[in-house]
Amino acid sequence: MRQIFLIGIGAGDPQHLTLQAIEAMQAVDVFFFLDKREETHDLIAARQALFQRHARPDAQAMVLNDPPRAQSPNYHQDVQHWHEQRAERLEEALMTSLSESGVGALLVWGEPSIYDSAMRLMRQIEARGQCAIQTQVIPGISSIQALAAAFAEPLNRIGEPIHITTGRALKAGFPADLDAVVVMLDGECSFTHVMQPEMEIFWGAYLGTPDQLLIQGPVMQVADEIITTRQQARARHGWIMDTYLLRRPLRLKA
Amino acid sequence: MRQIFLIGIGAGDPQHLTLQAIEAMQAVDVFFFLDKREETHDLIAARQALFQRHARPDAQAMVLNDPPRAQSPNYHQDVQHWHEQRAERLEEALMTSLSESGVGALLVWGEPSIYDSAMRLMRQIEARGQCAIQTQVIPGISSIQALAAAFAEPLNRIGEPIHITTGRALKAGFPADLDAVVVMLDGECSFTHVMQPEMEIFWGAYLGTPDQLLIQGPVMQVADEIITTRQQARARHGWIMDTYLLRRPLRLKA
Ligand SMILES: C[S@@+](CC[C@H](N)C(=O)[O-])C[C@H]1O[C@@H](n2cnc3c(N)ncnc32)[C@H](O)[C@@H]1O
Ligand SMILES: C[S@@+](CC[C@H](N)C(=O)[O-])C[C@H]1O[C@@H](n2cnc3c(N)ncnc32)[C@H](O)[C@@H]1O
Repeated sequence: MRQIFLIGIGAGDPQHLTLQAIEAMQAVDVFFFLDKREETHDLIAARQALFQRHARPDAQAMVLNDPPRAQSPNYHQDVQHWHEQRAERLEEALMTSLSESGVGALLVWGEPSIYDSAMRLMRQIEARGQCAIQTQVIPGISSIQALAAAFAEPLNRIGEPIHITTGRALKAGFPADLDAVVVMLDGECSFTHVMQPEMEIFWGAYLGTPDQLLIQGPVMQVADEIITTRQQARARHGWIMDTYLLRRPLRLKA
Repeated sequence: MRQIFLIGIGAGDPQHLTLQAIEAMQAVDVFFFLDKREETHDLIAARQALFQRHARPDAQAMVLNDPPRAQSPNYHQDVQHWHEQRAERLEEALMTSLSESGVGALLVWGEPSIYDSAMRLMRQIEARGQCAIQTQVIPGISSIQALAAAFAEPLNRIGEPIHITTGRALKAGFPADLDAVVVMLDGECSFTHVMQPEMEIFWGAYLGTPDQLLIQGPVMQVADEIITTRQQARARHGWIMDTYLLRRPLRLKA
């Protein structure tokens, strides 16, 4: 049975790698790089630098082109179809490039269990039943943790839940009953939908990298600064990844 | 100005330590161990093993006894009072044991931004204005990440938020509009309050350690097994820490 490691590599800082991740990388025969279209050269380069530094000298790297993703009105269906095509491509690569007792790996950005499709991808390959694999997940530092660390700001206040959501969901409204949310996957500055006097934002981009950007303050006061900074940085780098915590004072229940 | 590292050490597996955490530990002059009452010998031993292995040979370890925590009906007030007393004790220790240009550290279980009071503690010391400090947070692998990795289970399905809460909050009801929650800090098997036919549980205790326990299944079917396993393990070890994901099939919106 082929063994596949899904290795969380942190969200930008090569020093976020864990000892467990390094140990796993040493055991890998073939690294599969899924070349996501939305990721640009910098992110692929970051993964490959880790490969250069921590893989065995005889380990192989195999780059797979990602299938294109449809943009129909049905978001869930598009994503599911895209995942199926990715599963087929990776399955084929596993069967042709990895011996039956070989060890393969995907290097996963941040933490594999948070808004990443690698685990689902492996499940789909398992379900197809063509290629027997055993998957092992190695946790990694998430961009959320890099955000909290950069601001030295806990994600929860005493007794408060931690709620992590997407820009898409935030646009539909700040969740009722909550006083804080962490937002990821937001291409559109969706915090502009919650311009409330007491609402504070802790915004970070390129977290963990030398280009890290941090802006903090009442969202009504700093929204414009974030929008401008984001536009300029994106133009300069060709890409941007940002994450933020939106928070208002805790409403204490009786 | 004294520099203080809050170093996330992972939630049980010494291999979860990051390269950044190890580098930080090498810079530390004095490690302060806050000897929490709820933590038993095993947890203190785990921290001290990391100290032995990664601290400089000339680094010092200082153990501070935690003040007792009141158990009045006002939970928030009790916790706040307890935090103040801890701040006073740590402040005193910093001022007496660490030179003004020295580097101190607290080793924080799991990830410092998730249900941990170390950052608040440092803020309180800063606010008191007696002892100038500069705090730097080093992220660590959380027990939640260890849970997801052990089950190879993503914390979110496509587009779904991730909601992390406490046993105390879960007892008040499964959050409306959500189909999945991660529960921490639950001493009372609060999943028994959500015995619904479609609800699944992924339960893990002593995650990341050689004693790791995992149970998964429909909560109505496995609740008794978890309760019994938990009781027996707790009696054997003298303590238990468990975390779980409760989840039902996704209700897709139109
Ligand atoms: C597909 S998700 C992957 C998340 C990843 N698994 C993690 O744990 O960070 C991509 C989103 O993560 C966030 N992100 C990832 N890396 C980031 C970074 N270095 N700085 C800021 N945000 C980042 C952004 O919100 C981005 O839209
Ligand atoms: C005070 S919180 C600290 C959480 C920690 N900062 C983290 O990131 O995991 C303690 C709770 O974390 C969870 N926990 C910590 N370590 C654990 C472990 N090794 N196995 C299972 N649960 C754990 C339990 O729910 C426990 O009640």
